[in-house]
Amino acid sequence: MPADAFEMPTLYSRSVVLDDAVRILDRREFPFKTTFVVCRDHEQVADAIEAMVTQSNGPFYAAGAAMVLAARKAATLDSEARIDFMKAAAARLVRTRPTNNNIASAVSHALTLVADFQGPDEMFAAHIEDGVRHDWERRRDLLARIGRHAASLVSDGERLMTYCWSEGALMETLASVLRSGKEVELVCPETRPYLQGARLTAHSAAEMGVKATVITDGMCAHAIASSRATKLMTAADRVTMSGHVINKVGTLQAAIAARYFRIPYYATVIEPDRKAANPGDVEMEERDPGEALHCLGIRTASPLAQGWYPAFDVTPPDLVSAIVTSRGIFAPSTLAQTPSGIGASEERRREHYPAGDFVG
Amino acid sequence: MPADAFEMPTLYSRSVVLDDAVRILDRREFPFKTTFVVCRDHEQVADAIEAMVTQSNGPFYAAGAAMVLAARKAATLDSEARIDFMKAAAARLVRTRPTNNNIASAVSHALTLVADFQGPDEMFAAHIEDGVRHDWERRRDLLARIGRHAASLVSDGERLMTYCWSEGALMETLASVLRSGKEVELVCPETRPYLQGARLTAHSAAEMGVKATVITDGMCAHAIASSRATKLMTAADRVTMSGHVINKVGTLQAAIAARYFRIPYYATVIEPDRKAANPGDVEMEERDPGEALHCLGIRTASPLAQGWYPAFDVTPPDLVSAIVTSRGIFAPSTLAQTPSGIGASEERRREHYPAGDFVG
Repeated sequence: MPADAFEMPTLYSRSVVLDDAVRILDRREFPFKTTFVVCRDHEQVADAIEAMVTQSNGPFYAAGAAMVLAARKAATLDSEARIDFMKAAAARLVRTRPTNNNIASAVSHALTLVADFQGPDEMFAAHIEDGVRHDWERRRDLLARIGRHAASLVSDGERLMTYCWSEGALMETLASVLRSGKEVELVCPETRPYLQGARLTAHSAAEMGVKATVITDGMCAHAIASSRATKLMTAADRVTMSGHVINKVGTLQAAIAARYFRIPYYATVIEPDRKAANPGDVEMEERDPGEALHCLGIRTASPLAQGWYPAFDVTPPDLVSAIVTSRGIFAPSTLAQTPSGIGASEERRREHYPAGDFVG
Repeated sequence: MPADAFEMPTLYSRSVVLDDAVRILDRREFPFKTTFVVCRDHEQVADAIEAMVTQSNGPFYAAGAAMVLAARKAATLDSEARIDFMKAAAARLVRTRPTNNNIASAVSHALTLVADFQGPDEMFAAHIEDGVRHDWERRRDLLARIGRHAASLVSDGERLMTYCWSEGALMETLASVLRSGKEVELVCPETRPYLQGARLTAHSAAEMGVKATVITDGMCAHAIASSRATKLMTAADRVTMSGHVINKVGTLQAAIAARYFRIPYYATVIEPDRKAANPGDVEMEERDPGEALHCLGIRTASPLAQGWYPAFDVTPPDLVSAIVTSRGIFAPSTLAQTPSGIGASEERRREHYPAGDFVG
């Protein structure tokens, strides 16, 4: 397939808009409806993130944009009050969903911009906006780098299974695979209760021309056993320095099934979290149990049933064939040993992660 | 809990009625609606089974009742035509859903009654009905036996995880556990696409006073990892003599997760299928792929997505801690070696299945 034969999917390229407001594509209803939630201040953005209007990379862009809205409000305050206001906005945004570092990363970058600002008041908001937009470009570049590294692990004719919705890394991986002329299909577990796999992942892959097959979340092992899936590749909401992968609940059992049937499992992340040595350092979000008892707003369970909705699970490093980062591909057990964080050089990568066809 | 403190659930005791017609509780809508599909002949019963009006043990009772309706129609035919008619009805019923032996068992018993009949025409239908009702009583007794055996594997305070909807064996197991005064909770994966776990299993357990927690199908491994589930117990649509368990798709990955975290997996079945040496001898039903793209009639997946719906998967014997049958508890690897089928004696059981706390 020639490089220009596909477009990047809607959710990747047209999902968050910053103009006089922040307009966020409502992923709860996409692709059945294409509507945007309009947020006039950072509080409304925080509410939208909490309500799952956007997920995956969406909150990164939305939180950065929210900081721009906050900066516009704070511009006329005196220097100290302005900083307090921006910090409060940052804290509010981080509180929305604690497990993924995306939001923390976006707002801490914005707070650096706030701290560095030395111009006149009327330049404050533009300074923050410029910096945030630069951060977005950098993010795209990092995701494209992950995509190129991950694509090197994908063979021609591969049937990749994923889990949930990996907006940045997986879409960039598919793009890189397609540009190289290789054929690839995607198997998408639907990912209850929010159906990100059925709605977002499958739709986005199909928009790129990739055949996307939706299965229920119970079918992962059977799909692998019957060679419908040849490799498992998911995003990671967080990777600890111990090599544990924290991702949407369901990833763990797909990874266990992959190991049982000896196909590789690759997790993608921009970088592991140097502040999280172990899973115990990561706050694991539990959401409203009622979410597990409904589908698209309709009750799915007996009125006599209880619910439980842990949003994430933890996959131990021995089930992970490799962690694919923006700096290269690493064995999960060696993240903590790699000098200067991760992937200091190609040399280093080869040392920590041998070449070959990883099958478990 | 005293023996009389609970009632057997609606689905177990009040699900199929035979009078002038066959009235089948519509499990597609239960417990949200309690309606019966009324079938006036065996063809309508077959249609209802195909359309998933009833599942689990339901088709056993419905198919037997359908044979009674067929017998009423066939009563006035001459002997040869009557037999042909009954055989055609049996074949039609078996074709509805091929993987579980329930229907085949019910209709072959009815055909034995047909072959044995020697009375006057006007007694034919009553003869079949008496025999079918006797078969139902025998079935209840066999299920109760499984329940007593399986209950011996359940400790006080157990948090049992199941998969899909095990109408007979699991409900009898819970009943036996409750009668013995032990505490038990049930974890019910919702079992997409039909939500048998969320609707039928959870409701039925709760009707018995057992706390029933519904999780999405992706949460099984995480539930085990966090000790929310201490044992896995499912029904089996078929157990081959090689010890393979064929059950609702999703069972395999729950069993793999159970093994990974070293909790036991028990499968229940009235008896293994002596005619099926291996899984290759069992027809594996694939249903309409569109079923994986909908929930309760509503589209859940992108309009660009493909679907896949294999209804069953195969769990190999090395993942199964024990097969619980009406005749006792057996190691899956020894089914074929047991003389005279299975469970010839308590002696034999002890020889093939050691006592102790099986953890993998």
